[in-house]
Amino acid sequence: MTEHSLWRFSRAFHRAINERRFEDLETLIDEDVDWAIHGPIEMFPFFGARRGREAVVHVIRQIAETVRVHRFERETILLGVDSASSMLRYSLTALDSNKPISVRLAHFAQFSAGQLSSLRVLIDSFDLVEQALGRPIHLPKIASFA
Amino acid sequence: MTEHSLWRFSRAFHRAINERRFEDLETLIDEDVDWAIHGPIEMFPFFGARRGREAVVHVIRQIAETVRVHRFERETILLGVDSASSMLRYSLTALDSNKPISVRLAHFAQFSAGQLSSLRVLIDSFDLVEQALGRPIHLPKIASFA
Repeated sequence: MTEHSLWRFSRAFHRAINERRFEDLETLIDEDVDWAIHGPIEMFPFFGARRGREAVVHVIRQIAETVRVHRFERETILLGVDSASSMLRYSLTALDSNKPISVRLAHFAQFSAGQLSSLRVLIDSFDLVEQALGRPIHLPKIASFA
Repeated sequence: MTEHSLWRFSRAFHRAINERRFEDLETLIDEDVDWAIHGPIEMFPFFGARRGREAVVHVIRQIAETVRVHRFERETILLGVDSASSMLRYSLTALDSNKPISVRLAHFAQFSAGQLSSLRVLIDSFDLVEQALGRPIHLPKIASFA
């Protein structure tokens, strides 16, 4: 039984982020990859949609210039033949301030011939924004949407 | 081939939200269900962790008192034997203001003997908070975490 594409991609991704080694990662990304990280792009320019290997490697470089992965925990996982989804909790370090950042995200990945062909990432974005701002945002308690 | 538990639960869930019919839903929830919607509970009291059928039915009632599902689109889905994950985009209507709310979420569900035994939901929470506030929150553009 061969290893699921998710594990190869995950190792290469974390090597790219933490060691800035991109050579393995590039071979594991489909030329026409469809990529999106949902979240506030006005604050995090490396969020949003990207199309194609070059654009995706570029955005992973931007992420690598911003954070280091301290550790991550895979809370839930589902594997299909050529697909995978999981919920992860990342402990990150912001590179220029050395500040710890904790973020929970869900990803849905599709692979084609061992290469990543589609990735969708959803982030608990409000929690992330508050950490990036370094202060809580005051929220009214609503029973419903005013 | 029997129907996947996700479809039965999904129909009963939407019937509970939109028609406030809970009798089917209760039979599809494990007595010891482990449930969590990650997001800012200070604003949305029906977010957070719940344990057990009674607490979960109660929180679904709170959601049903707050919103109606106008429509939803399942953008991605992965089905395991007794598990399922998907990314969904919901168009909701806030019940007391009739205001439209759009929210993207990811869920990871586990079933046991056809009943929901675990559910984890992650929401693009910043986007939701801005809609609930009715105004954008000013965000600085950050190249990194200040």
